Amino acid sequence: MSRVVQHLRPPYFAVVFTNVRNSGTVGETGDDGYEAMAGRMVELAARQPGFLGIESVRDAAGVGITVSYWESEEAILGWRRNGEHLEAQRKGRERWYQSFRLRVCRVEREYGMGEAAGGPGR
Amino acid sequence: MSRVVQHLRPPYFAVVFTNVRNSGTVGETGDDGYEAMAGRMVELAARQPGFLGIESVRDAAGVGITVSYWESEEAILGWRRNGEHLEAQRKGRERWYQSFRLRVCRVEREYGMGEAAGGPGR
Repeated sequence: MSRVVQHLRPPYFAVVFTNVRNSGTVGETGDDGYEAMAGRMVELAARQPGFLGIESVRDAAGVGITVSYWESEEAILGWRRNGEHLEAQRKGRERWYQSFRLRVCRVEREYGMGEAAGGPGR
Repeated sequence: MSRVVQHLRPPYFAVVFTNVRNSGTVGETGDDGYEAMAGRMVELAARQPGFLGIESVRDAAGVGITVSYWESEEAILGWRRNGEHLEAQRKGRERWYQSFRLRVCRVEREYGMGEAAGGPGR
């Protein structure tokens, strides 16, 4: 999967999930099941109706940003209510994250490397 | 600065900038001035009218996500036209990034660690 989601067609929706892990041992053994869960959640989200793509980065200090893209707010709600995802959300609050913030956004416009940024009205 | 921007009051705007660096030498010497520029851009953005906060993560593979938050679309436009920022954008396209995608979003709602996610209507 490409690390940068390309060329979607606004308007659509984004969930920006910024978080700090509880331990610094990201990706090592002793991560309390975190990496396995994270991989599983990407797999599951990709099967969810209305899923458009996901971008995810974590640094050595344990700070992560994951942005998932969705066709509609209903699709986001469907994913939030997925059973395995609910369990992951619970463990996230109880054990995995020191802090997080989740923002639901409507994507208004976008551009990439080879494209003009567009004028003031865009 | 905290790595997670807390408690803003929707609606406001977010710029999600996802990118892949051209070289794997992030944070090392020989980064072609990238880290210095990145730090300078955060400083400058923070002085821009309408700036609300910024979150930024880059992983060892050189993939980065930076999300900046703004009061209005006009504030985003003002920042895009800042002179030093224009120069950084040019170098980004020419030298620093293998690929990127930039998305301008309206933040509709948000919540954090100790807060309820809210019902379907939120």
